[in-house]
Amino acid sequence: MAKVLMKGNEAIAEAAVRAGCLNYFAYPITPQSEIGEYLARRLPEVGGMFLQAESEIAVVYMLYGAAGCGARAFTSSSSPGISLMSEGISYLVGAQLPAVFVNIMRGGPGLGGILPSQADYLQAVKGAGHGDCRMFVLAPASVQEAADMMADAFALAEKYRNPVMVLGDGLIGQMMEPVSFKAQKAVAMENKSAWATTGMSARDGNTPNLVKSLHLDPALLNQHNLDLKAKYERMAREEMRWEMYNAEGDYQVLLVSFGTMSRVCRTAVDMLKAKGVDVALLRPITLFPFPEEQIAMAAERSCCKAVLSVEMNMGQMVDDVKRSVGRQKPVSWYGKCGGEVPTPEEVAGVVEKTIADMDFT
Amino acid sequence: MAKVLMKGNEAIAEAAVRAGCLNYFAYPITPQSEIGEYLARRLPEVGGMFLQAESEIAVVYMLYGAAGCGARAFTSSSSPGISLMSEGISYLVGAQLPAVFVNIMRGGPGLGGILPSQADYLQAVKGAGHGDCRMFVLAPASVQEAADMMADAFALAEKYRNPVMVLGDGLIGQMMEPVSFKAQKAVAMENKSAWATTGMSARDGNTPNLVKSLHLDPALLNQHNLDLKAKYERMAREEMRWEMYNAEGDYQVLLVSFGTMSRVCRTAVDMLKAKGVDVALLRPITLFPFPEEQIAMAAERSCCKAVLSVEMNMGQMVDDVKRSVGRQKPVSWYGKCGGEVPTPEEVAGVVEKTIADMDFT
Amino acid sequence: MAKVLMKGNEAIAEAAVRAGCLNYFAYPITPQSEIGEYLARRLPEVGGMFLQAESEIAVVYMLYGAAGCGARAFTSSSSPGISLMSEGISYLVGAQLPAVFVNIMRGGPGLGGILPSQADYLQAVKGAGHGDCRMFVLAPASVQEAADMMADAFALAEKYRNPVMVLGDGLIGQMMEPVSFKAQKAVAMENKSAWATTGMSARDGNTPNLVKSLHLDPALLNQHNLDLKAKYERMAREEMRWEMYNAEGDYQVLLVSFGTMSRVCRTAVDMLKAKGVDVALLRPITLFPFPEEQIAMAAERSCCKAVLSVEMNMGQMVDDVKRSVGRQKPVSWYGKCGGEVPTPEEVAGVVEKTIADMDFT
Amino acid sequence: MAKVLMKGNEAIAEAAVRAGCLNYFAYPITPQSEIGEYLARRLPEVGGMFLQAESEIAVVYMLYGAAGCGARAFTSSSSPGISLMSEGISYLVGAQLPAVFVNIMRGGPGLGGILPSQADYLQAVKGAGHGDCRMFVLAPASVQEAADMMADAFALAEKYRNPVMVLGDGLIGQMMEPVSFKAQKAVAMENKSAWATTGMSARDGNTPNLVKSLHLDPALLNQHNLDLKAKYERMAREEMRWEMYNAEGDYQVLLVSFGTMSRVCRTAVDMLKAKGVDVALLRPITLFPFPEEQIAMAAERSCCKAVLSVEMNMGQMVDDVKRSVGRQKPVSWYGKCGGEVPTPEEVAGVVEKTIADMDFT
Repeated sequence: MAKVLMKGNEAIAEAAVRAGCLNYFAYPITPQSEIGEYLARRLPEVGGMFLQAESEIAVVYMLYGAAGCGARAFTSSSSPGISLMSEGISYLVGAQLPAVFVNIMRGGPGLGGILPSQADYLQAVKGAGHGDCRMFVLAPASVQEAADMMADAFALAEKYRNPVMVLGDGLIGQMMEPVSFKAQKAVAMENKSAWATTGMSARDGNTPNLVKSLHLDPALLNQHNLDLKAKYERMAREEMRWEMYNAEGDYQVLLVSFGTMSRVCRTAVDMLKAKGVDVALLRPITLFPFPEEQIAMAAERSCCKAVLSVEMNMGQMVDDVKRSVGRQKPVSWYGKCGGEVPTPEEVAGVVEKTIADMDFT
Repeated sequence: MAKVLMKGNEAIAEAAVRAGCLNYFAYPITPQSEIGEYLARRLPEVGGMFLQAESEIAVVYMLYGAAGCGARAFTSSSSPGISLMSEGISYLVGAQLPAVFVNIMRGGPGLGGILPSQADYLQAVKGAGHGDCRMFVLAPASVQEAADMMADAFALAEKYRNPVMVLGDGLIGQMMEPVSFKAQKAVAMENKSAWATTGMSARDGNTPNLVKSLHLDPALLNQHNLDLKAKYERMAREEMRWEMYNAEGDYQVLLVSFGTMSRVCRTAVDMLKAKGVDVALLRPITLFPFPEEQIAMAAERSCCKAVLSVEMNMGQMVDDVKRSVGRQKPVSWYGKCGGEVPTPEEVAGVVEKTIADMDFT
Repeated sequence: MAKVLMKGNEAIAEAAVRAGCLNYFAYPITPQSEIGEYLARRLPEVGGMFLQAESEIAVVYMLYGAAGCGARAFTSSSSPGISLMSEGISYLVGAQLPAVFVNIMRGGPGLGGILPSQADYLQAVKGAGHGDCRMFVLAPASVQEAADMMADAFALAEKYRNPVMVLGDGLIGQMMEPVSFKAQKAVAMENKSAWATTGMSARDGNTPNLVKSLHLDPALLNQHNLDLKAKYERMAREEMRWEMYNAEGDYQVLLVSFGTMSRVCRTAVDMLKAKGVDVALLRPITLFPFPEEQIAMAAERSCCKAVLSVEMNMGQMVDDVKRSVGRQKPVSWYGKCGGEVPTPEEVAGVVEKTIADMDFT
Repeated sequence: MAKVLMKGNEAIAEAAVRAGCLNYFAYPITPQSEIGEYLARRLPEVGGMFLQAESEIAVVYMLYGAAGCGARAFTSSSSPGISLMSEGISYLVGAQLPAVFVNIMRGGPGLGGILPSQADYLQAVKGAGHGDCRMFVLAPASVQEAADMMADAFALAEKYRNPVMVLGDGLIGQMMEPVSFKAQKAVAMENKSAWATTGMSARDGNTPNLVKSLHLDPALLNQHNLDLKAKYERMAREEMRWEMYNAEGDYQVLLVSFGTMSRVCRTAVDMLKAKGVDVALLRPITLFPFPEEQIAMAAERSCCKAVLSVEMNMGQMVDDVKRSVGRQKPVSWYGKCGGEVPTPEEVAGVVEKTIADMDFT
């Protein structure tokens, strides 16, 4: 398909439609309101529906309801709006229901600001809700990738019957890039008759499905959590995504960065290379599951003297990087937040200083 | 003061009153509803007020309102109820307001069950809300400690102007133990005239305080986050709490465990010692800040061959233990969740198996 | 069209579909929940949508939204649910928007009971909302009439751009009667481009419509209310409905009764006639506008010695009957409420006692 | 007590405090927000509490809760806010609980405007909620009377265990007049142990009270409504209030007017008297119960040729006046609404035209 120039928010919306999603529930919030504006016009064309709910609490339980009867559905919001969905996300996980969340992060905490940020990493990856609760988290670095991930997100949500989040930021949402959409057909959700409430009645001799997250028997709830744990481990085995840049030869420093921040890092890598300084970049594409072993291996190489996690927040992924690397190599963080985006020059400067500091050691 | 036999939930409630807290806002949820029942009767005796709000969303913004005008206030809930407060917790952090949260955890995810659990560790410690958002988290292991921590919680919340969570579980809440209350006087919140909305009017020539979490200028929001980061680092320097058990001599395995689970581990340590197997226990008392260096030092000792994180969840703190230990020593997890509590015999068995497996290596 | 045997609630639902209404928003409440159950299945067959909102407050503002962009929409509820819509009904009146409400009354006040009642007469006819606020109110006495009125209700709502209520009771909703549906085609709402928000943009040189009930200029708000008053007077001239029974000859007593209660009265009239006692029945079919002059004329006849308003409430319509009749003839009330339905024998007995009492005067 | 110059809203607030009301729940809305502003400062001085709820729905159920345990409580709002309380008002009536509502009316319908109005007469007097639901309604015509009525309102609410509304308008709320407060002591609510939930426990051998509006047995619900009806009739016998002006001699026209509108009418009466035209004014002070017989008697006098109801709405009380007068004398309406207040000259002009028109008949 030919490429068209689109805003990230619109590409995300169009990709959801192409993935056969006919149900979008949301409440507007900057910097992602274009998703709703686009779908308000677009969904009726394909027999779908955009429903602006009265609050994000209502949104997440509409997702629960739609998913519970086997309908493909998604929502999008930005940081504070996602917090309001925390309880519902945990219910979706507990009831093993598929649903897709897009979080176009803004600066926090609280109301914060409306400019790009990566400050919801910890919430998305660790604390999406109470209980042993995990979302599958994908972090796009371009408009094209955001669009592609929307299709993947629905497939993953339905394969694992678990919420999936596409975690972008205001840059992804607002910038325009050429994008093409994968041809795909809207297939019915596979095997939904096994778990969804599809209207079967016990009166007809059927065993109706029951969608719930309540398990009062502790042995059953323990087993339920063991099953969920096994599911997350399977995600880690089968779905891990990451990419390396400039890692073929030797490198003094390993950068770890995700999303749009990784594009800045890529430019910084190029700038440093032009100066004769070799630095590699590892970009986690799935944030949960997290490419722990891949980072460990990249950091273990003897050429590598230090690891630098670059983030648009106050240092959230850096703990996962530290856990991956262990204590053999120094791991540090550089970043800004609240809408301030580190420039390639700044990142390159931090790398050069890191190397210089090591020389003194 | 003489000791009295009290349920944990009631001791928490009484301790809050003794700490001079006259405002309690909450919505009932098992297994902590006795806190509200106790305070409904007790607070009016001291001129205070229990207000049962119409939802947990309302609760957290009542805390915001009370704290914003410099009043000492707290709430208590259990897992799903805390999720509903996520947005508000982030607003409290952003506006730098003191407030105390008690979470008597139940099994999750979703509705889960009503029996004890430690499954909100990640949410409490990492993902309490969106944005760069952190709560100070204390984990009591006895009724006496829960009561003592309530007094500390208000003091810490006000010292750092940040939400503080006392993270217990259904065992802490429901069991009865002898407890005494520290004598303390209800002091007015210090320096509140510098930041709280105390009714000053610009008409009187004053500069009224403004309580807000909105910072539209990215440079100011970045600086605001740097200030918060410095505050968290100061907490780590000044407030870190942990305790060691049976760590004076050599030990083959280091157990790491918090809250009531650590009491089971302590018994397991005693059982193993009686058999001639030396095992140490490190109990993090503050979960944020996390005693990373203390765990690192305890694990580094050459006697120590392995580290085992024991939790009533599917393995949440274990990642922080891994990050602390690095890759030199094997770190593993043992636990149950959903109301199943590992017994001392089970923990001892896992330790013995861990040692046996190492012998084969 | 052939007649089918249907429950009143289902006939109301089917009639709405036949009237071209594709939008039904509601929250379930006894004794009318079958309307939603029927439409949940039926509306998708015709490309329509049943949306169960999170509260009646949400429902009424979904109606406002749908009507505001020119879509035919309705809701149904029972007494307490209608109270929750009071504010929104006033907003619909103020913004001059068409919408249809079905109230299948239950006994009150408060939660009351779930059996039939006519206890919302005053609320429907006088106090549907604050401000000078009036609904057009239709009261069916049979399943067939309820079905026919649904079609009329949409037409009236759109002709006058005002909310219309079909005011039934649990008997109408729950009983089964043969019903046929008028053939009618779903026409687009006439002239909606003149007032609805149809997506026109000022950028295209259009004057977009503004839907609102706010008029801060008192002269404009006064004129707005004069326009509404003129509209209500036009309703009274053009849409008044009532029917007489056994009024051809002389009658000693005039019964006034609406809805299912009028059917009981009709039987009582027949029973009395068989005994040689002539009594007439006037049934108001529109409750607003109210057939004041028709009642006045029927009461003025010299044969008529007394007027009796028979209602399933504590006497609500009787004041309108008194106003209509004036003070020349005695007007009294008989009724029961809360689910107790007066029998024909009881009504006949009250009539006979009324006549006997007059003889003594 | 000496008189002080106060705004009506503030006088209402102070009078509530003097009447021993320590609980005020509200949500702000123009033109009565000064009541809350005043009480936020004043109530803590006397150990009371102003709680700003998250919505008017929350407000009315806080009143239900407070009244249900025998606490004196009130709220104030303006037109749309009262509509949101409709369901709860009906619950209070059904559960026979005392509570006081102040409605400082603004122009409607919908958002309307913020200037004075009397457009909620019908809602207050006829349609306060669903079911057979009645409030006792008092209409003050001066700041002094508004203050006095607050004390009466609590006494009436508690005597009859029924909601009482003080129905004012923006003029009453906003204008300043000298006011003195009756000396009264805050007595405990009489006999509340017979009906309120005061914490008695069946375990102590007591029969706890049950506060509810649900009566599923139709015979009981019917009897409950008969009891309520008897209570309303007792109100009419014992509490009716009205006043006459210039009715000692003969008068050609009888004006009926309530609230601030009656003050304008009083001036018009004086202006006409100066011209030699005698007109009487009857002011209903209680709107429910309504002084039907008093109006009938005043209109029956042979000197009286016509009755004119003057209201700041589109003609709401006029139907009650017509019912009272019967058809012997012509009854007409004059008024404006939405903030337009008829002047004495306008009212006098309408009276003169009414007389002139009669001369031609």
